[in-house]
Amino acid sequence: MNRDSFAAGERLVSPAYVRQGCEARRSHEHLIRLLLEKGKCPEDGWDESTLELFLHELAIMDSNNFLGNCGVGEREGRVASALVARRHYRFIHGIGRSGDISAVQPKAAGSSLLNKITNSLVLDIIKLAGVPAVTSCFVVPMATGMSLTLCFLTLRHKRPKAKYIIWPRIDQKSCFKSMITAGFEPVVIENVLEGDELRTDLKAVEAKVQELGPDNILCVHSTTSCFAPRVPDRLEELAVICANSGIPHIVNNAYGVQSSKCMHLIQQGARVGRIDAFVQSLDKNFMVPVGGAIIAGFNDSFIQEISKMYPGRASASPSLDVLITLLSLGSNGYKKLLKERKEMFSYLSSQLKKLSESYNERLLHTPHNPISLAMTLKTQGEHQDKAITQLGSMLFTRQVSGARVVPLGSVQTVSGHTFRGFMSHTNNYPCAYLNAASAIGMKMQDVDLFIKRLDKCLKTVRKEQNKESNMLTGIKCFIGR
Amino acid sequence: MNRDSFAAGERLVSPAYVRQGCEARRSHEHLIRLLLEKGKCPEDGWDESTLELFLHELAIMDSNNFLGNCGVGEREGRVASALVARRHYRFIHGIGRSGDISAVQPKAAGSSLLNKITNSLVLDIIKLAGVPAVTSCFVVPMATGMSLTLCFLTLRHKRPKAKYIIWPRIDQKSCFKSMITAGFEPVVIENVLEGDELRTDLKAVEAKVQELGPDNILCVHSTTSCFAPRVPDRLEELAVICANSGIPHIVNNAYGVQSSKCMHLIQQGARVGRIDAFVQSLDKNFMVPVGGAIIAGFNDSFIQEISKMYPGRASASPSLDVLITLLSLGSNGYKKLLKERKEMFSYLSSQLKKLSESYNERLLHTPHNPISLAMTLKTQGEHQDKAITQLGSMLFTRQVSGARVVPLGSVQTVSGHTFRGFMSHTNNYPCAYLNAASAIGMKMQDVDLFIKRLDKCLKTVRKEQNKESNMLTGIKCFIGR
Amino acid sequence: MNRDSFAAGERLVSPAYVRQGCEARRSHEHLIRLLLEKGKCPEDGWDESTLELFLHELAIMDSNNFLGNCGVGEREGRVASALVARRHYRFIHGIGRSGDISAVQPKAAGSSLLNKITNSLVLDIIKLAGVPAVTSCFVVPMATGMSLTLCFLTLRHKRPKAKYIIWPRIDQKSCFKSMITAGFEPVVIENVLEGDELRTDLKAVEAKVQELGPDNILCVHSTTSCFAPRVPDRLEELAVICANSGIPHIVNNAYGVQSSKCMHLIQQGARVGRIDAFVQSLDKNFMVPVGGAIIAGFNDSFIQEISKMYPGRASASPSLDVLITLLSLGSNGYKKLLKERKEMFSYLSSQLKKLSESYNERLLHTPHNPISLAMTLKTQGEHQDKAITQLGSMLFTRQVSGARVVPLGSVQTVSGHTFRGFMSHTNNYPCAYLNAASAIGMKMQDVDLFIKRLDKCLKTVRKEQNKESNMLTGIKCFIGR
Amino acid sequence: MNRDSFAAGERLVSPAYVRQGCEARRSHEHLIRLLLEKGKCPEDGWDESTLELFLHELAIMDSNNFLGNCGVGEREGRVASALVARRHYRFIHGIGRSGDISAVQPKAAGSSLLNKITNSLVLDIIKLAGVPAVTSCFVVPMATGMSLTLCFLTLRHKRPKAKYIIWPRIDQKSCFKSMITAGFEPVVIENVLEGDELRTDLKAVEAKVQELGPDNILCVHSTTSCFAPRVPDRLEELAVICANSGIPHIVNNAYGVQSSKCMHLIQQGARVGRIDAFVQSLDKNFMVPVGGAIIAGFNDSFIQEISKMYPGRASASPSLDVLITLLSLGSNGYKKLLKERKEMFSYLSSQLKKLSESYNERLLHTPHNPISLAMTLKTQGEHQDKAITQLGSMLFTRQVSGARVVPLGSVQTVSGHTFRGFMSHTNNYPCAYLNAASAIGMKMQDVDLFIKRLDKCLKTVRKEQNKESNMLTGIKCFIGR
Repeated sequence: MNRDSFAAGERLVSPAYVRQGCEARRSHEHLIRLLLEKGKCPEDGWDESTLELFLHELAIMDSNNFLGNCGVGEREGRVASALVARRHYRFIHGIGRSGDISAVQPKAAGSSLLNKITNSLVLDIIKLAGVPAVTSCFVVPMATGMSLTLCFLTLRHKRPKAKYIIWPRIDQKSCFKSMITAGFEPVVIENVLEGDELRTDLKAVEAKVQELGPDNILCVHSTTSCFAPRVPDRLEELAVICANSGIPHIVNNAYGVQSSKCMHLIQQGARVGRIDAFVQSLDKNFMVPVGGAIIAGFNDSFIQEISKMYPGRASASPSLDVLITLLSLGSNGYKKLLKERKEMFSYLSSQLKKLSESYNERLLHTPHNPISLAMTLKTQGEHQDKAITQLGSMLFTRQVSGARVVPLGSVQTVSGHTFRGFMSHTNNYPCAYLNAASAIGMKMQDVDLFIKRLDKCLKTVRKEQNKESNMLTGIKCFIGR
Repeated sequence: MNRDSFAAGERLVSPAYVRQGCEARRSHEHLIRLLLEKGKCPEDGWDESTLELFLHELAIMDSNNFLGNCGVGEREGRVASALVARRHYRFIHGIGRSGDISAVQPKAAGSSLLNKITNSLVLDIIKLAGVPAVTSCFVVPMATGMSLTLCFLTLRHKRPKAKYIIWPRIDQKSCFKSMITAGFEPVVIENVLEGDELRTDLKAVEAKVQELGPDNILCVHSTTSCFAPRVPDRLEELAVICANSGIPHIVNNAYGVQSSKCMHLIQQGARVGRIDAFVQSLDKNFMVPVGGAIIAGFNDSFIQEISKMYPGRASASPSLDVLITLLSLGSNGYKKLLKERKEMFSYLSSQLKKLSESYNERLLHTPHNPISLAMTLKTQGEHQDKAITQLGSMLFTRQVSGARVVPLGSVQTVSGHTFRGFMSHTNNYPCAYLNAASAIGMKMQDVDLFIKRLDKCLKTVRKEQNKESNMLTGIKCFIGR
Repeated sequence: MNRDSFAAGERLVSPAYVRQGCEARRSHEHLIRLLLEKGKCPEDGWDESTLELFLHELAIMDSNNFLGNCGVGEREGRVASALVARRHYRFIHGIGRSGDISAVQPKAAGSSLLNKITNSLVLDIIKLAGVPAVTSCFVVPMATGMSLTLCFLTLRHKRPKAKYIIWPRIDQKSCFKSMITAGFEPVVIENVLEGDELRTDLKAVEAKVQELGPDNILCVHSTTSCFAPRVPDRLEELAVICANSGIPHIVNNAYGVQSSKCMHLIQQGARVGRIDAFVQSLDKNFMVPVGGAIIAGFNDSFIQEISKMYPGRASASPSLDVLITLLSLGSNGYKKLLKERKEMFSYLSSQLKKLSESYNERLLHTPHNPISLAMTLKTQGEHQDKAITQLGSMLFTRQVSGARVVPLGSVQTVSGHTFRGFMSHTNNYPCAYLNAASAIGMKMQDVDLFIKRLDKCLKTVRKEQNKESNMLTGIKCFIGR
Repeated sequence: MNRDSFAAGERLVSPAYVRQGCEARRSHEHLIRLLLEKGKCPEDGWDESTLELFLHELAIMDSNNFLGNCGVGEREGRVASALVARRHYRFIHGIGRSGDISAVQPKAAGSSLLNKITNSLVLDIIKLAGVPAVTSCFVVPMATGMSLTLCFLTLRHKRPKAKYIIWPRIDQKSCFKSMITAGFEPVVIENVLEGDELRTDLKAVEAKVQELGPDNILCVHSTTSCFAPRVPDRLEELAVICANSGIPHIVNNAYGVQSSKCMHLIQQGARVGRIDAFVQSLDKNFMVPVGGAIIAGFNDSFIQEISKMYPGRASASPSLDVLITLLSLGSNGYKKLLKERKEMFSYLSSQLKKLSESYNERLLHTPHNPISLAMTLKTQGEHQDKAITQLGSMLFTRQVSGARVVPLGSVQTVSGHTFRGFMSHTNNYPCAYLNAASAIGMKMQDVDLFIKRLDKCLKTVRKEQNKESNMLTGIKCFIGR
């Protein structure tokens, strides 16, 4: 409503009331202006009405929503289903142009603004979450794995001779495939066992660099967030090796934004050595649906090169989700979620410790892993695999999701490469175990239900085991120290 | 978004594109301004995005949506459920004040505007639909019956001696109860049979007026839209009687807005005689959910008296529904619906005629009824009621809704008054029949399915009747002419 | 999805996963079954997905949503606007039938169920909130005032001679108009001042009953929730008078459900004496939009008579709102809201006391009023009205809503009756004052903002007063004790 | 609602009505069962209520919507914003698993079903649209360009020696970049001019295959839909060359599903020769938001290899959009859209012809292009570029979107490759021109507005030209014939 409309409104109802309403409107507008001018996440979350007003205002700036538009192209943002139009707030044109996923679209000023603002907000949050040195980032509507692939494909043009990627082992298929898909040969660096923890073998990395020769290496591909007992890679040291050898360094920070420790590793790595880009999942860090990632870095032009590598337009849906989420939460809301996650981690840790001890098991000592925990699963002789599989399946049917049982000796071939001890990040971890994690958004109720159900399942499994293996001597899992 | 926001936007994406978007926004604003200034239904329906922008803009003018509001009253428009807030577009304060349902609320400039504009739009549509002389109306969130009650209660204060309401019979319970609830004694005027039609007995009305004395009569309560073979009351003549005797005249125009004939009767009645108010249903005329009515008239101050008679605030929901509907349709869209209804009436009429003849039945000749039709149901001796009930129930289970079978001789007592021949508007209609109507929004597919299913049902019923009453002589239904 | 669909699903994805999903569905169904079988508000609020599934399931039971329906009636639940259909979850048929607002509609099994369940839930909540003896209630889509009118209109048929309604004064227009609209003469009983409180003058009531004669009195119309310094009527004593004289008793319990004290008064009144019906607002007690009320009582047949008095169908919108709200909250959620309100009352009370004392004002001592508070406004000589009006308008423009300044000596005529000291419930309250209330849903932030802004406004007003009336002696407000 | 719930419902309202409602529910369930069993697009579009019921039923099968779920993983489908959850119908888990974008997720049976059904429906539609021989396809949440990249990356593993991609020139950046990003060297085959049309130079293709050697060629990358005067590639002949030389063949069918001619070319190509995969945009063919594509082919195992090449999970949003759209439209609705598009093409063609002639211009004769049209733009001497740019910008500001002016002699460098005559698909097209297309969803009103506005713009431009170049001889554009 413009000034004339308000004037007409004043004639219909009392001018004083309309003026009050008009004044109230200004406070919404003020928030919008601040956002556009500063490009920062507001401290306090926005009201749903401000948020929807803002989205509405942006949407009507796209040509498919022009009242007088006539379209004679092949891509006009036409929508067949009103349900679909509505669920996208009538943003139909996606983001980017054929040349660059961060480019501005002439047909869609609103969608373009949405894209810019989202990237700006996300940058602000990454700084706040522990990487103040970051200079550039963008949201890409692909999950982490494919986004890593895009980084590798970009590097290819800068390092035409390179064939290998140095990769401290982490047993997660999409990490491995991200390199295969990009057409490179992953050079797997096995982890070393330090206490219960699995950590980066820096010497092996250095040796490989020497052996293969820096020019033949596309990059080092390291990982922060991971399942215990693996812990985040030694980023600082890796970053220094990369800097010294002139090798790029790409960090898979999948769900690391939620942990100040993971973020600190990146900040430090970039400070003392070299990190070219770090990639993180949208859904795992910002509680939005699966499907987006953030590619961030410390060098504007390299990040821009990656964004220019994406051929064609892309879905605005993940950007929209994270924009809505961040504006609703505000930076204070997001910080609160981070704080609660940390508290839940302590709580889960202490509860799991208690439970494990009552079953004569042990919570693995993995102080470098800020998110994931593991408790041993003692198993007996020939029946171990069966019992562990049974435990996993019992948890599944009892609606415990995300708990992962890791048996010994599992072998799996992924894209031609055979992994022994698959899932445990090493060929021969000393014992089987069960993982649980405290991720952003977890509630105390989740922990309590999990502990209760796990207790029940363990009880059942033990009973059956006792029956079966009454005469067998239990083999305990003694882990070094 | 205000000028500063656009300026900030121009710095983020290209100024040319933002300016184009800003320009586009103006066309939405232009429509809104026109609406507020003219108070008329736009000719072309609004786009959903203009509509939602408009509702959004209004809503943020209500104090419950002020970002900085603090409420220390007992009614602050707080909402517990986000689903509820959203479905009402965050209009929570309802309409009206304790003194007057049309009054402006200081706390809710937006809701107040919504209310004013809705009433203004509805007035425009009533004019367009055939009553150009109307001067005032308002939407009330009560169905037709209760709205009639409110009219009668208002008249009571002007006519303290009056006890009776003259009422040409129409067999619809809520019409009758509207008078009972208001505390008056309905004086039932039986209809006269003219050909197949049941019409107002003007002489009986005049006689009653003489007999009871005008001062003892609160008003004449006449009806337009009704089931055939009853036809709309002779409004002109009734209006003249009222004018001459100084008796108010309230017209129940329940679903008459959709028929130019019903509307013309009201226009003529007001021109040549006296009509104080006419009441119509929102749902039946505007395809919105049940629950609202329009009270309209030719004298501003009387209509205002009625609106002041409603004690307390009221739901804005019916107003919101009709506002959304009229803005979506535009006057052209509404006119199109009226035209299609008329065409469907002809189509239903011809199809029903054909079908009835093929069963040796007859479409009753009721040219004065523009909406409802009736075909005879020949029935045999003792089995007639059973067969007719069976037909009704067969249609129901076959998902034919709205078809009504009317047996002979049904007797019903409503609020102490006994009606013989109930449902047929007369004590002794010559034959049983079945009603079908062509109401606004009906589709050709409705007619075709109805005819097909009715055909099947009649076939089945006939077969059974033939079995049962093979030896009985069929008694045919000869209706006078 | 039925069994065949799940079987087909199992062939598309893994049977184990589909079975898990199917199992999960059962927990939603279980909640729905419990609700339908017990008719009670669930303890824990429902998840939005259960709620929407339930509404969806109900809606497809209405004929307008039948896939094969053909409609040939005048009211077929057709909707012109998809926006309107969606916001009503496709419930279009409203509630009730022409004869009875609580009746079941053949065309709309889903809407009928919705109506029954809502009434059942609301009954459960009224019991829980402090009136366990209640036996019957229904939601009516009219605000409190019009609902009271409906009660009076119903009583008229039982007491044809009655002309008067005994009404302990409460200065709220719609209460007064509810009687006028019903066509009765309110007999105003002035309140008595006890300490700071204004309380029911029981002797005056008894005297009036004697004077007018019970048969000429339609009922006593008492009030619970009200603005301080008036306090809830002495319901027990009034109920006893009514029982002894055979006079019906209707209680206006507008926003009393939220206060255990108000509810207890009703429970006690009904136990020791006579209460025929008590009426409460939906919006004020359940945080839904304005427009509905609950009529409740202790005698099924009388409550049913009222429900049969409403002529015609009615909007389902208020019922839907309260149903969604109660299912979302659960009884625990509602109890929590009640508890918080009480706490906020204490907090507001202590804060307001502190503030008033710092301005040499006083918080009126009104221990019988559990919701509303009042602080004195000392004013000086000739300028008092101006200053008070100014204070009110300052609060309004500072977005304080619901605070009410009450000057001395205001005179107002409502429907022909002149009230001296209007707004203060008495002809001559000793001093001007300001009201604030702690109603359901109030937040600590509301209180804090209010106190802060009031402080500022008082400061400003005082400054100006001091300037103007430097030489005048301040006249203090000494209120008896 | 299960049987017990219905039984409880029958006790609350009439059993007959509940049974009717229950029966009605079955017709929705029937549609859902058919869909799951047949996996085909229903002929008639679904009602919104069936659609939402279906989505709702699927969503509650995902673990994030289990009422009793407890999550202890790093990816649990938690959502911070209710707005976000709602707009995705609570599908949060995306599609696919780390290994395969088409894999089933244990945590998300509903999302997995959604994915399978969508792919199945889309396959059905591709058959119906003209490629009955297609055997496999999947929706990928990346736009066409990136999807082509994924195809090339998959081929790399099968053809390790290959470095080149044979590419008949089409001037659209993302097509070119899709090859660059995948790390290959595009071998540009210039088009030949036949009449006004630019067509595939088959001899040049064959020569290049000989020159480079089949093993060094990753694939031929051909195009169907394109801007006139370029026309779809000679797919049959290219497919034969590929088959004979053992070279894979990837077809960019960006917006070709909407044209039976484009689809026929693919069907024929696959029949007589070799086509490994064809890629099409979701938004351009199915009127959904930008962001998804379909990768389809004739060999299940190759298409599966591509789907396994995508590392990690992916957004379900594009799948959900196309599912909603196809179920709403039904195959009949989609066919109707195809038919209307064809008619609009004829209409646009005839209108543009008329207009061009009135300005002494010519509609280029491009009978092989079924979607895009071009009219010449006569320009004068030195001012030509300016005038053409001005025309483009005038159309833009007049809200004509999608019309493209193509000047002569534009040179652009894309990823290191320099294109002369960029935008015109050839180094030296004989004249400048303007493009307009008839794409799916275009309305007659679009055409009329376009012609009207173009007329105005041309008039203005001509006037200015005449002024400026009064003395210059106009150079006309005579194109062969």
